[in-house]
Amino acid sequence: MKPDSRPLILVTNDDGIQAKGILHLARCMAPLGRVVVVAPDRAQSGMGHAVTINDVLRIEERPFPVKEVEQAWQTSGTPVDCVKLAIYEILGQKPDLLVSGINHGSNASINVIYSGTMSAAVEGAVEGIPSVGFSLLDHSPDADFSATTPFVTKIAQQVLSKGLPTGTCLNVNFPKLTDQEIQGIKICRQSTGHWDDAFDKRTSPSGSTYYWMTGNFNNPDQGEDTDEWALRKNFISIVPTQFDLTAHHAISTLNQWDLK
Amino acid sequence: MKPDSRPLILVTNDDGIQAKGILHLARCMAPLGRVVVVAPDRAQSGMGHAVTINDVLRIEERPFPVKEVEQAWQTSGTPVDCVKLAIYEILGQKPDLLVSGINHGSNASINVIYSGTMSAAVEGAVEGIPSVGFSLLDHSPDADFSATTPFVTKIAQQVLSKGLPTGTCLNVNFPKLTDQEIQGIKICRQSTGHWDDAFDKRTSPSGSTYYWMTGNFNNPDQGEDTDEWALRKNFISIVPTQFDLTAHHAISTLNQWDLK
Repeated sequence: MKPDSRPLILVTNDDGIQAKGILHLARCMAPLGRVVVVAPDRAQSGMGHAVTINDVLRIEERPFPVKEVEQAWQTSGTPVDCVKLAIYEILGQKPDLLVSGINHGSNASINVIYSGTMSAAVEGAVEGIPSVGFSLLDHSPDADFSATTPFVTKIAQQVLSKGLPTGTCLNVNFPKLTDQEIQGIKICRQSTGHWDDAFDKRTSPSGSTYYWMTGNFNNPDQGEDTDEWALRKNFISIVPTQFDLTAHHAISTLNQWDLK
Repeated sequence: MKPDSRPLILVTNDDGIQAKGILHLARCMAPLGRVVVVAPDRAQSGMGHAVTINDVLRIEERPFPVKEVEQAWQTSGTPVDCVKLAIYEILGQKPDLLVSGINHGSNASINVIYSGTMSAAVEGAVEGIPSVGFSLLDHSPDADFSATTPFVTKIAQQVLSKGLPTGTCLNVNFPKLTDQEIQGIKICRQSTGHWDDAFDKRTSPSGSTYYWMTGNFNNPDQGEDTDEWALRKNFISIVPTQFDLTAHHAISTLNQWDLK
């Protein structure tokens, strides 16, 4: 038998291996290479770049409802744990492409730092793997991902053929629109919007107080080069995203401080 | 009684409210303003920018062994949850300064993205609060923080008087050295080192397989402007750190792609 020369594609997410979004993403990847799924065994939204260092991790191979998928594994860990387990324990090698999602809900603007979906892609970039996180602006568990197919395919093909600039991955967000309504793709910067949080205070039947985090997204950044602007104008947004958090422009200011 | 015009200082961490590092940090802050501690009720290392959105949160006021501390609260949440709870539920206002740590262990280089200590500081920056994360290169629960005192004080004083460039916080790492051995402070960029992970596979008494994450830090980046270089040369490293993850330099490359 000839060795399989097709690219090896790792698929992960943060909504859990049962989510509709990862099923759709694995289906999109099947024509492009050998597909292996490694994803959390339950929803891990909002996990950011968390890793499991104070607890054990478990992995389990399981069936996956896309017949072309070569292997599917669920893990007890976070999305970033999934990437590390996939590379260093399950595959024993780095894949040619890492795709994460498709997330049920936006990861545009500041959401990128809270997102497990995007943190998996960022971890891929740390490992030097061309990596893309995909998200749809629809939180519903039954969200309709069909309009994303040609764009997901095209973006993945471009990344497979061209690679990505060193130290970067892509944060791709889709508006909740039909194929006909989508105006195209814009390369953007992350808008500076953020969440004004609030806490919904409640009392349990036994009388103890607890809170649910809620909040409103507040975006004063009206820049036409931002992801939020593109999405509002019916475009797909792509933000090249990096793990170097250095505020390089602030170094000269700090060098003038009196810190002797 | 005269209203208290001293600055309001929020102290948090990721090692938990019982850790020696947060006790030291609260002591350093006491002469500088009114100090409120809001920290996790247990160790939350490696939690990155995780937030609790699929579970409830609890908060509890508790005694704190530094008499000048006005209030101390423990929460069931992550370090980022602590910042949000402090601002929107406990204080009902933004503090004048947020300090996080002192972390037991390095948050230099790529560790910044896994670190709950630094994610709390980054969340402060998202909220527009001058914020600093402090870490000591000593994982021991009984680490000796005494050499950090004059530097923590000086950095906090400078931040209180000058503020920080918009959208940035500070990532401060201390070498494990005495006051006499420390050579001073360097403003740095985050080095590009990363972890080569490994998983220690074990079998439980009942026969199930589980894993512990381990790994080795690998830093090919020998730049003399990096945090790792400064720490190796016995300097304290300060990296201005931002939440804009946009790889601005990659936008022009991506605009040349065929994504029509």
